[in-house]
Amino acid sequence: MTSSDDRVRVAVIGASGYTGAELLRILLGHPRVTIAMVMARRAAGQRIDAVFPHLTGRLALPVEVFDADAVAAGAEVAFCALPHGESALVVAALRARGVTTLDLSADFRLHDAATWSQWYGSAEHAHHPAAELLAGAVYGLPERHRARLRGAELIAVPGCYPTATTLAIAPLLDAGLVRATGLVVDGKSGASGVGRTPGLSTHLPESAEGIRAYKVGGTHRHTPEMEQELSLAANAPVRLLFTPHLVPMSRGILACVYAEPTDPSRPAAAYRDALVAAYRDEPFVDVLAPGLTPDTAFVRGSNRCHVTAVYDPRAQRVLALSAIDNLVKGAAGQAVQCLNVARGWPETMGLDTVALFP
Amino acid sequence: MTSSDDRVRVAVIGASGYTGAELLRILLGHPRVTIAMVMARRAAGQRIDAVFPHLTGRLALPVEVFDADAVAAGAEVAFCALPHGESALVVAALRARGVTTLDLSADFRLHDAATWSQWYGSAEHAHHPAAELLAGAVYGLPERHRARLRGAELIAVPGCYPTATTLAIAPLLDAGLVRATGLVVDGKSGASGVGRTPGLSTHLPESAEGIRAYKVGGTHRHTPEMEQELSLAANAPVRLLFTPHLVPMSRGILACVYAEPTDPSRPAAAYRDALVAAYRDEPFVDVLAPGLTPDTAFVRGSNRCHVTAVYDPRAQRVLALSAIDNLVKGAAGQAVQCLNVARGWPETMGLDTVALFP
Amino acid sequence: MTSSDDRVRVAVIGASGYTGAELLRILLGHPRVTIAMVMARRAAGQRIDAVFPHLTGRLALPVEVFDADAVAAGAEVAFCALPHGESALVVAALRARGVTTLDLSADFRLHDAATWSQWYGSAEHAHHPAAELLAGAVYGLPERHRARLRGAELIAVPGCYPTATTLAIAPLLDAGLVRATGLVVDGKSGASGVGRTPGLSTHLPESAEGIRAYKVGGTHRHTPEMEQELSLAANAPVRLLFTPHLVPMSRGILACVYAEPTDPSRPAAAYRDALVAAYRDEPFVDVLAPGLTPDTAFVRGSNRCHVTAVYDPRAQRVLALSAIDNLVKGAAGQAVQCLNVARGWPETMGLDTVALFP
Amino acid sequence: MTSSDDRVRVAVIGASGYTGAELLRILLGHPRVTIAMVMARRAAGQRIDAVFPHLTGRLALPVEVFDADAVAAGAEVAFCALPHGESALVVAALRARGVTTLDLSADFRLHDAATWSQWYGSAEHAHHPAAELLAGAVYGLPERHRARLRGAELIAVPGCYPTATTLAIAPLLDAGLVRATGLVVDGKSGASGVGRTPGLSTHLPESAEGIRAYKVGGTHRHTPEMEQELSLAANAPVRLLFTPHLVPMSRGILACVYAEPTDPSRPAAAYRDALVAAYRDEPFVDVLAPGLTPDTAFVRGSNRCHVTAVYDPRAQRVLALSAIDNLVKGAAGQAVQCLNVARGWPETMGLDTVALFP
Repeated sequence: MTSSDDRVRVAVIGASGYTGAELLRILLGHPRVTIAMVMARRAAGQRIDAVFPHLTGRLALPVEVFDADAVAAGAEVAFCALPHGESALVVAALRARGVTTLDLSADFRLHDAATWSQWYGSAEHAHHPAAELLAGAVYGLPERHRARLRGAELIAVPGCYPTATTLAIAPLLDAGLVRATGLVVDGKSGASGVGRTPGLSTHLPESAEGIRAYKVGGTHRHTPEMEQELSLAANAPVRLLFTPHLVPMSRGILACVYAEPTDPSRPAAAYRDALVAAYRDEPFVDVLAPGLTPDTAFVRGSNRCHVTAVYDPRAQRVLALSAIDNLVKGAAGQAVQCLNVARGWPETMGLDTVALFP
Repeated sequence: MTSSDDRVRVAVIGASGYTGAELLRILLGHPRVTIAMVMARRAAGQRIDAVFPHLTGRLALPVEVFDADAVAAGAEVAFCALPHGESALVVAALRARGVTTLDLSADFRLHDAATWSQWYGSAEHAHHPAAELLAGAVYGLPERHRARLRGAELIAVPGCYPTATTLAIAPLLDAGLVRATGLVVDGKSGASGVGRTPGLSTHLPESAEGIRAYKVGGTHRHTPEMEQELSLAANAPVRLLFTPHLVPMSRGILACVYAEPTDPSRPAAAYRDALVAAYRDEPFVDVLAPGLTPDTAFVRGSNRCHVTAVYDPRAQRVLALSAIDNLVKGAAGQAVQCLNVARGWPETMGLDTVALFP
Repeated sequence: MTSSDDRVRVAVIGASGYTGAELLRILLGHPRVTIAMVMARRAAGQRIDAVFPHLTGRLALPVEVFDADAVAAGAEVAFCALPHGESALVVAALRARGVTTLDLSADFRLHDAATWSQWYGSAEHAHHPAAELLAGAVYGLPERHRARLRGAELIAVPGCYPTATTLAIAPLLDAGLVRATGLVVDGKSGASGVGRTPGLSTHLPESAEGIRAYKVGGTHRHTPEMEQELSLAANAPVRLLFTPHLVPMSRGILACVYAEPTDPSRPAAAYRDALVAAYRDEPFVDVLAPGLTPDTAFVRGSNRCHVTAVYDPRAQRVLALSAIDNLVKGAAGQAVQCLNVARGWPETMGLDTVALFP
Repeated sequence: MTSSDDRVRVAVIGASGYTGAELLRILLGHPRVTIAMVMARRAAGQRIDAVFPHLTGRLALPVEVFDADAVAAGAEVAFCALPHGESALVVAALRARGVTTLDLSADFRLHDAATWSQWYGSAEHAHHPAAELLAGAVYGLPERHRARLRGAELIAVPGCYPTATTLAIAPLLDAGLVRATGLVVDGKSGASGVGRTPGLSTHLPESAEGIRAYKVGGTHRHTPEMEQELSLAANAPVRLLFTPHLVPMSRGILACVYAEPTDPSRPAAAYRDALVAAYRDEPFVDVLAPGLTPDTAFVRGSNRCHVTAVYDPRAQRVLALSAIDNLVKGAAGQAVQCLNVARGWPETMGLDTVALFP
């Protein structure tokens, strides 16, 4: 229908992981995009459909080693799905060559380089490898930063937990309905969030029939990212306790945010109403009908986010809930949504597949 | 892109079950189709996105009680996803009004009304309720009956197990590589094959950590359907033993077909080679590279079928294997593929979404 | 080894549910107990190993309809695993006949009949059907009420969530380390907690790949039970927000209790230390080593409880965590532990099977 | 109850894998055994309850490096749960020191050293490292070789698939009801059969929602072991095709054996009747009532085996079915059963825990 001239050539870098695979899945259905090259260190030399047999018959590109010049020569846009630290260097090389870059690592999400050092600094990278690019990076949560995303050339695609958490609670902070202090985020994730490297924590015999918290005590690296976004919403510094859990399923994030109301006597419906108002025109966020609660099973494979909020007048606490697919709205789908906004294309383009249920 | 005038209006009847939901999911992405109405007895009066929350934001039609005149007035094409027996009556009413009908029940799959009575007859319907339509019905397995599907107005969409089984073994029978006698089919299905009505056999606490055979001893109703198709391939009457199993997962069919070679001294590669030859031009059937075996995880949510065949020279037996998604290539996707063929549209139209992996 | 004269004859009432089955599993290994009769309305007339095939070869008693006189004639001790409301009437009949009774319903857990009416009252039972027995019932959490359980004749076995929650946080309230106000309990349960009646929420295709909260907004009936026990610990009225979740696994409860420290400058180790001190001599509660967090996979099938506590100095919040098997320490195992205490038997008798891992 | 003098001291070698852990679980409940030492190379230096947190509070022995003299000095009996090849050397060292040894590897299962070389030979061990011990080893399937197990000092505990397969079909071969030729074994296993080393095939995101065959074409090493035992039953050389499958669950083996009747006109009940006759006095094998089929969920955690057989008169094929827990009757439980027989203890001692259901 559209001539190939209309299509933008993109590169997917870090294509051998789940986020990379999910980018390929989504981009194969995008009418304005052509996948020009796929890159990944470990899988280099293999065909991508040998790395991911579900792509058999759909994509047969060879996996290449990353080369910034090759990307610049062959693609206008790059998606980077690499580990943090490593990603910053790749992104810097791409930006230096003028390639529009959507980075799915954590490297450009935090505006403050010192915060990056504190949470992500390592022996290899004590300081941010490309701090000079931070100011120009746009945090790619379209529901919060749509205007800045238009025309953006470096987009930091948010983390999965921060996406779910921010979409659940930010409108209540915006509206002054809950306090900026004392927030507790109890997050639950499917095992694909761990990535494609096998380990004991995701070895089926040990993980299929158990649930556990991990990185407890406020040590998970998504904490400062949530605080950054929620501080903007609250217009005040937010410190919160985030506890992630590993759930015996492949995909999905459920975020449960506990908050204190600013006015305990406010009608219980006020919290959900604020979500309705905030998301009235959003193409991907659905506020569930009263009585329903988000279930990750209903958003699996889609870019949608289901949210709601309830109030317990006895305990005087608000609970805001959201469900997303960690690999779609929590990663690859959101990246494509950002590209759509950046390019001025319809925001849902290539993202209108229905969730796979059951 | 396409004007609404180009679109064919379709009705989905039996929309409250999994096959119905899957039809809606796929048809929502089909560029030549508009979902005009959804019908289901139990859910009548509700909105379809209340019945299936994963459709929130995508489809908000009210569920209606079936009415043949209403369908004929509002749709050119109907998909029937009703129980057998009941379906035949609905299909007859639709055909009498000229509606092109794709029936996903078993009612029009068997060419012989007596065989239907033997396997599907009940107190309510001892004999086929619309036997006069059998001769005009086309068995909707495009890889086997593509020519007859062009322009077809009554299409019997195959069962999930017969689809997987036929695609695995029919080419070997076609080519005379295996005997028509002594075939054993060991089938494994995810729990969505049971349907949406809860029961103890699919109650998560009892089913998540167990596997079992059911309808053992050659009593499963898909047996005569397999025999009909494989007899055509063998050009000889086939009697086989089919044993289905319930696997603790939502979607997927794995068919393992055990057969005797007609010539035990033939090279082991001959069996897979025959599949390669048979499926060279098929858009949805992939013969896996030697060394790989089909895994339902790689076709989940897609209309593709992964197949292979191996030979054990010690035991002198052939094993042909195939994996499909029971709700897609085993039901709704195949129905849409049939419609594409019947209408002369590109066969993959609306069916090019990549499998959801992981 | 022990003569049958040494054994106490017990009846299991409500034997067709999961708690009943689990009582049978445990009691079959108890050296001082003989299962004299099993009762259940729905399954009456069947043999218990037809109801539960895993008992094949181990227990072949017929399932009988409940009859208080028959129980009194044939058993000294009864375990009641019936729905609330119904249970109170059965318990009253048994107590009137002098049968020592361990009730696994909620009917005798709350000391206050008015609270029962508020949370459990129904059209059929607006008020507690046997309120006169409440004063004599002992709350069967041995770690909290061991002394009162000795010689007890009516024991209210705690709920699964309250057991996990109380064991995690009560010692911190005891020691004054956390505030009695603002507690948030985020509970996660396997699907066996829903019981043996199939429904859409536990239908494998819809539940195997999803997580969701249910009974949100402080409406779950275990809330007042937690508040009762934690108020005793805090020596002050506790109001908390409890949010349960359904996790795609068969067994297990993970309780995450969020609390405010009374002194934010206290060393982070103080909270876990308090658990160590509290549980030093407890046979079934293990405080995990620092760095480890409870995982329900490690207590499946056992009566043990794994606990720990951590402090986040940034957010100034305490997280106490515990994992149990909902059917064992959360129900049947705890009931047997209570019987052991009540009878003066070794507390671990019949409860020393190791968790089934993996 | 029993003095410690009565207890036999045992060593568990290879204690860091699943079979080792399961031996510890079972032996902790055995009244005649004391676990004297646990050995494993990888985990040496750790406490066993750090390696396996489900043993917390139950066993705190340090993991030691294997030393044959230390075993001989401290234990009368050793269980070896090591990889094949490596195991033979350890067993030889133990036998040289007079230690009664139960070997759970494949090294002493095959009576013929040449067959071992063909299937298990490697660059490191082209030939059996201790072939001189083969003649004295007893194949530890008590239902088939009980008499030889009495007093045995070297017992080769069978593989999981051969145990399930032999128990299902051997009585039909014994009785001459089915032919020795043309047997097809379709086996399904839970992921614990793969062992504790993580890999992509058992990585939860990729395995929780898929089923696949592996080692197809008659290449799985359990094939000659099945053929050896079934040839004894048939009193004729058996060649069979065995196809194993990986099922998304932790534990369990389901064996489906397809066979040709020697007399197609025999009554359909004859096959199950033969199982009933064969297993009438067996403490661990249950022939299910007609109409029921084995389900691994009903034997999980127990040493029991559920079997049945059905006949399809249309296809003239017999299907024999069995379900076991691969880690119990398929490994550790069977080893303990063998020890009980060898020592003349009651055969069910320490093995009477009921299956964990659900």
